[in-house]
Amino acid sequence: MDAQKIIFLFIFLVPLSSATSIVDFCVADFNYPGGPAGYACRNPANLTADDFVYSGLGVAGNTSNIFNASAFLAVDITFPALNGLGLSMARLDFGVGGVIPIHAHRVSEVILVIEGTIIAGFIGSDNTPYYKTLNKGDIMIFPQSLLHFQVNVGDSPALAFVSLNSASPGFQTTSFALGANDLPTDIIQKITLLDAAQIRQLKTVFGGTN
Amino acid sequence: MDAQKIIFLFIFLVPLSSATSIVDFCVADFNYPGGPAGYACRNPANLTADDFVYSGLGVAGNTSNIFNASAFLAVDITFPALNGLGLSMARLDFGVGGVIPIHAHRVSEVILVIEGTIIAGFIGSDNTPYYKTLNKGDIMIFPQSLLHFQVNVGDSPALAFVSLNSASPGFQTTSFALGANDLPTDIIQKITLLDAAQIRQLKTVFGGTN
Amino acid sequence: MDAQKIIFLFIFLVPLSSATSIVDFCVADFNYPGGPAGYACRNPANLTADDFVYSGLGVAGNTSNIFNASAFLAVDITFPALNGLGLSMARLDFGVGGVIPIHAHRVSEVILVIEGTIIAGFIGSDNTPYYKTLNKGDIMIFPQSLLHFQVNVGDSPALAFVSLNSASPGFQTTSFALGANDLPTDIIQKITLLDAAQIRQLKTVFGGTN
Amino acid sequence: MDAQKIIFLFIFLVPLSSATSIVDFCVADFNYPGGPAGYACRNPANLTADDFVYSGLGVAGNTSNIFNASAFLAVDITFPALNGLGLSMARLDFGVGGVIPIHAHRVSEVILVIEGTIIAGFIGSDNTPYYKTLNKGDIMIFPQSLLHFQVNVGDSPALAFVSLNSASPGFQTTSFALGANDLPTDIIQKITLLDAAQIRQLKTVFGGTN
Amino acid sequence: MDAQKIIFLFIFLVPLSSATSIVDFCVADFNYPGGPAGYACRNPANLTADDFVYSGLGVAGNTSNIFNASAFLAVDITFPALNGLGLSMARLDFGVGGVIPIHAHRVSEVILVIEGTIIAGFIGSDNTPYYKTLNKGDIMIFPQSLLHFQVNVGDSPALAFVSLNSASPGFQTTSFALGANDLPTDIIQKITLLDAAQIRQLKTVFGGTN
Amino acid sequence: MDAQKIIFLFIFLVPLSSATSIVDFCVADFNYPGGPAGYACRNPANLTADDFVYSGLGVAGNTSNIFNASAFLAVDITFPALNGLGLSMARLDFGVGGVIPIHAHRVSEVILVIEGTIIAGFIGSDNTPYYKTLNKGDIMIFPQSLLHFQVNVGDSPALAFVSLNSASPGFQTTSFALGANDLPTDIIQKITLLDAAQIRQLKTVFGGTN
Repeated sequence: MDAQKIIFLFIFLVPLSSATSIVDFCVADFNYPGGPAGYACRNPANLTADDFVYSGLGVAGNTSNIFNASAFLAVDITFPALNGLGLSMARLDFGVGGVIPIHAHRVSEVILVIEGTIIAGFIGSDNTPYYKTLNKGDIMIFPQSLLHFQVNVGDSPALAFVSLNSASPGFQTTSFALGANDLPTDIIQKITLLDAAQIRQLKTVFGGTN
Repeated sequence: MDAQKIIFLFIFLVPLSSATSIVDFCVADFNYPGGPAGYACRNPANLTADDFVYSGLGVAGNTSNIFNASAFLAVDITFPALNGLGLSMARLDFGVGGVIPIHAHRVSEVILVIEGTIIAGFIGSDNTPYYKTLNKGDIMIFPQSLLHFQVNVGDSPALAFVSLNSASPGFQTTSFALGANDLPTDIIQKITLLDAAQIRQLKTVFGGTN
Repeated sequence: MDAQKIIFLFIFLVPLSSATSIVDFCVADFNYPGGPAGYACRNPANLTADDFVYSGLGVAGNTSNIFNASAFLAVDITFPALNGLGLSMARLDFGVGGVIPIHAHRVSEVILVIEGTIIAGFIGSDNTPYYKTLNKGDIMIFPQSLLHFQVNVGDSPALAFVSLNSASPGFQTTSFALGANDLPTDIIQKITLLDAAQIRQLKTVFGGTN
Repeated sequence: MDAQKIIFLFIFLVPLSSATSIVDFCVADFNYPGGPAGYACRNPANLTADDFVYSGLGVAGNTSNIFNASAFLAVDITFPALNGLGLSMARLDFGVGGVIPIHAHRVSEVILVIEGTIIAGFIGSDNTPYYKTLNKGDIMIFPQSLLHFQVNVGDSPALAFVSLNSASPGFQTTSFALGANDLPTDIIQKITLLDAAQIRQLKTVFGGTN
Repeated sequence: MDAQKIIFLFIFLVPLSSATSIVDFCVADFNYPGGPAGYACRNPANLTADDFVYSGLGVAGNTSNIFNASAFLAVDITFPALNGLGLSMARLDFGVGGVIPIHAHRVSEVILVIEGTIIAGFIGSDNTPYYKTLNKGDIMIFPQSLLHFQVNVGDSPALAFVSLNSASPGFQTTSFALGANDLPTDIIQKITLLDAAQIRQLKTVFGGTN
Repeated sequence: MDAQKIIFLFIFLVPLSSATSIVDFCVADFNYPGGPAGYACRNPANLTADDFVYSGLGVAGNTSNIFNASAFLAVDITFPALNGLGLSMARLDFGVGGVIPIHAHRVSEVILVIEGTIIAGFIGSDNTPYYKTLNKGDIMIFPQSLLHFQVNVGDSPALAFVSLNSASPGFQTTSFALGANDLPTDIIQKITLLDAAQIRQLKTVFGGTN
């Protein structure tokens, strides 16, 4: 390549390349506090392809727990390249009869079934439930902020992956929210109409007090 | 005004005024189906100041119900001028001991207490509850999508107003979501770990079946 | 709770809880400079319910000024929990005849009248004014970026609250913008067609020079 | 091309091409009412390159008016291909001494001077003016929603173009907003502190009444 | 349930349920033209769980084509429930040596490998390539708008799924864009620096003319 | 101005002015790493009008290069006042026969021709090209993320300016992306169907290896 071409490339490209971190991607740097739009960007000069790949979802989750299921998350804090790019994923492993309990998050989710047969559903804000049996290869959309759940109804383990349109979706699981904290039982009773005994039982299961 | 001025105004303003509906505001026209961003805009030539004012929140709600409270909404379908402008409001009336049950919505909310003393709170996605007694003039923020509630703990009725940053926030009240529908009890049991008897009781209270 | 349950909770919740600051809320930390989306987030481990409550709007404003009114703001810099959540509020106190002068801001606003009778209005970009007398309990929407105003037309003080869909709306009051600075009078004259004497009078009232 | 290739292309491309209108662009169809996000899309099968080109800014504006200037707009209603794409432009022609009066709009603007010497400026929400003399080739940014203006201070006509990041920015010119309508003079007086005589003069110039 | 409860439910829920279509989801109705934010919403009263489930990705694609691969899309026009919810998916089938040619789209993408071994990569706007061999269970993020590709480098077929954060991402495949149309060869030559013979070959493969 | 007025102004304005940086604008401070929404804001107290003006586009670019053209950018890293305001610009200089090679970016662009005659065009995601000869004063819109190009077809130099709706658009030029890096020729061959000789030629021109 002759000198003229080199000069051309230099002039043409330099103003872009030095700001690549925000122009193209923003791999999270946890040395700074986050802000409303996500975390600060690592210097792209120090990044390689490895920073954009995550292998954590390749490992089956441990389902030896009360729900006989596990959810493993690829979100900004586990896979920092997602920061600012508006996507995250999770791997759902279900033992026989395994359940992902009813929960909600700020953004929408698509589930993809890889193995097994599950019932998946969500509940609209008019309390209408939309649920259906899903088989291998089926996808289902759960609209943003609505309560939804999945239950393995087949006679073998099931595997699914979900995608969400935020790098940090903020999961809130209903029974954990009610039972895994120190919110007084009498307040929970008033705001749910659940019986006190039932609430105390949730607190026992999920580790709450009061 | 002389002719030159009139011509000036005509030239300068005309290209803007004929598209006012989208330029400035978009009062909902329910003769067309809505879309992801809201409803179609009424022709601004047919609008008056009355279209931008709503008096429905000036009337005390009827609190003769199981929660001893009421929530009356000024959202796009009741106050169409909100369409596309990213705000809505609600009036909360509480009898003595009245409760707005735990619920969530897609967007953030600020509550303003006008009369009385209430406990208001929300639960983070790590299950930490943040709750406090609020008095007249206090405001509290409930972050988007998190479960929150209000309970009148004073010895007189209470009044509060809430603002939300969407014209159609999409409220989902937890106990209604579980109890006001035909989702089978055994599924609810699995996805909540509530007892079947408790679920049947919620269904009785909120009108659900199965 | 048995060991298995504890392990389950640990696995299931840990990846979420450590990133709570961005997942759920982002109480502003003013030790770092802000950015286009707001301020850095405080560590959620150091937050309590108190951080989400603000009592500054409970106090009547001092209306002993030329407009016989006051506007007190709950925005990100006074109530840091609003950061990133897209909402703010203000309390408007009006003496008899009090006026919130014509102003605009980037985002939409809803006013709620608590006491008294005011005229409130806005002006469309085609110069059409939309104004109306509002009474207790009435709300009115002022679309984003349009000039608007409120005048107490009752024979007693008035009180109103406004909500805006940004944590930092950026108020610009027209007469202050023209009169409270050192922009040369001859430039102001050209860009407004106001008389020089009138401009000098605004500068005297609002503290401008030149 | 052999049959296999044709089949491949057919399978691979068909699901995309039939929804091109929303996938790629959305040239406005004014046969339907607009909505908060803009107008309905014309069928892309009926579009040609001509639909994406606008020649209206190539013609000098008529500056024979009280401001000795003109602003000609390329916005969605004049150049429908801008719909949904987040950009618009305007051509500003200035006679000697010509003025674009102080105004604001919802979105940010960049001005580019092509001919002549102008003073351009904006006023911050803390009333600080930022203004400077601009020459050929200079650009200046006016942040969203802030009042700004341009004055030809050279001894020859000036020409500039502005770009804005919305297809329908919604211009509001301060003196027009106060003087080109039937808002009662006494209200304008209260909300601006302008003298009644000054307001009546604006109304005479801009065609307002009351 | 007694009468009082029924009345409570009626009052509390009615204002929400009738606007469910925009509140919660917006299944596309193709009887109306789309707009910049997507398609009109079907009446939720006519929807069932089936509308939120799509089985099209469960079927292996036909890879008998020049790239020995296929991409099957679940986007708004094939799975209308995605409309307005900001997500879509695709199934990628690779024969041995199969290739998804280099392409780009407006939004970010995450790929999940289900079977086989592929090389996946993207090119930054500073021309740095980031590519790596991915195995079963690996995910990789491709930032919005950047060119990216996948190649099956294993000795058996491969299967992957991708998620994108838009319901209609708008794929543009580079070689198709250059070779599958009637853009004159001499223009393509100038804007790519490819040889004319090479361009004519692409046009032969992809069905272009001129 | 009397004391009362001063007090009023003080009370009224102070809560706004101290947060001006985020309220109104956010001139980039490169002493901190950027984030997904842009760079940190400089303290507005240290800013003057000069910070909002950029003269770099007033200088003709050096077109002595292989494309006989140049693109000079006013983006956040060259003109920091653009940070957070959603706009940028570029100056395009074309020698006779000069070419801006085919490229794409995340956001939409409007081109304005100031001198000369160019052919400008873009290619839809269904591979339809939309191109046309543009003369002085013409504008053309290039929708977000689509490949586009400009060629000087007149017999004299040409000058154009483009505006984009992001402060950091992230340009990706196709032939540079393929030829200016070390991506192995055999991979490029597979993902483009270009001949190996052609790819090696691009690599020679643009400085790539492998």
